[in-house]
Amino acid sequence: MKLLEDKIRREGKILDGSILKVSSFLNHQMDPELIMQLGEEFARRFANDKVTKILTIESSGIALALAAGYALRAPVVFAKKHRSSNVFGDVYQTTVHSYTHGMDYNVVVESEFLCPGDRILLVDDFLANGKALEGLLELVRQAGAEAVGAGIAIEKGFQEGGNLLRKDGLRIESLAIVEKMEGSDIFFKQQNE
Amino acid sequence: MKLLEDKIRREGKILDGSILKVSSFLNHQMDPELIMQLGEEFARRFANDKVTKILTIESSGIALALAAGYALRAPVVFAKKHRSSNVFGDVYQTTVHSYTHGMDYNVVVESEFLCPGDRILLVDDFLANGKALEGLLELVRQAGAEAVGAGIAIEKGFQEGGNLLRKDGLRIESLAIVEKMEGSDIFFKQQNE
Repeated sequence: MKLLEDKIRREGKILDGSILKVSSFLNHQMDPELIMQLGEEFARRFANDKVTKILTIESSGIALALAAGYALRAPVVFAKKHRSSNVFGDVYQTTVHSYTHGMDYNVVVESEFLCPGDRILLVDDFLANGKALEGLLELVRQAGAEAVGAGIAIEKGFQEGGNLLRKDGLRIESLAIVEKMEGSDIFFKQQNE
Repeated sequence: MKLLEDKIRREGKILDGSILKVSSFLNHQMDPELIMQLGEEFARRFANDKVTKILTIESSGIALALAAGYALRAPVVFAKKHRSSNVFGDVYQTTVHSYTHGMDYNVVVESEFLCPGDRILLVDDFLANGKALEGLLELVRQAGAEAVGAGIAIEKGFQEGGNLLRKDGLRIESLAIVEKMEGSDIFFKQQNE
């Protein structure tokens, strides 16, 4: 999606050669107009998939998921990373390893919010090693629901998560796929839109 | 705001007499249409305050803040609760005590995203003891910016946070103020809208 690629080129910062920092518009400071447009693009790509619910993971997926849910007129659920005292009763949960934070954490959704028959669109800001998506897919499986696909803002094409999950049959729509970063240059994979 | 009060009456659950659970539409599962309308209401109430930025705290404030930022055409910043490896350089930070989780945590914003001269609208889903808002106000103070007020979805009027902060001069616009909860009944403070 050219709009997003242009924004990444203008405002993205490359740290240590492999970390792409987009915190000026996507996951710390957020550009609401852009995020609503990304949500509309997810909705366009999954318009015929009878999505009944959006599922993401706190925190940086929430805004994109809201935007997608607004455009698709579907409720949005965000999985929580810790079981708080306000989460009670039956839950679906799994463990996800975060490379960014170097730790495992529990990912929890109250079971009443994912139902058999739900057709779920997964949404997240980044896809790199795919561990977060795998965790969300496990929650969908536990619920007896179906994942119609994943809408990702930025995929790091040089990490393996996206291709492994595609091989497993998941449809992934990444609005920008970074193929490589050299110095301060960012190269995107060409996509037909 | 009648729309929100009605939704709370229909879907809110009271736990242990004092916990109001609204996770079916506000802070676990989210109703995107409702949340965008709450954002528009914040925008209406602060329309003349020359807001340059929205500030909230992860995770459950993010959706509301995005909605407010979209309506006010202002960027949204969410303070992070842990210093992750992707947050680098200069930051503003403070400590906030969470009664819900029974712990202190660090609240961090990269300093480039809060500037002297910024006119900041604080947004959060709940106001109870006021500790989260106090933390955000401290970040605004560190930045040399100005808080024009706070937009809150649900204030627990029977806890002290709101009134203490109002006494300190903060303008707080709470879209629903719960005065008391008895059995399964929720009573709201009458407000002129």
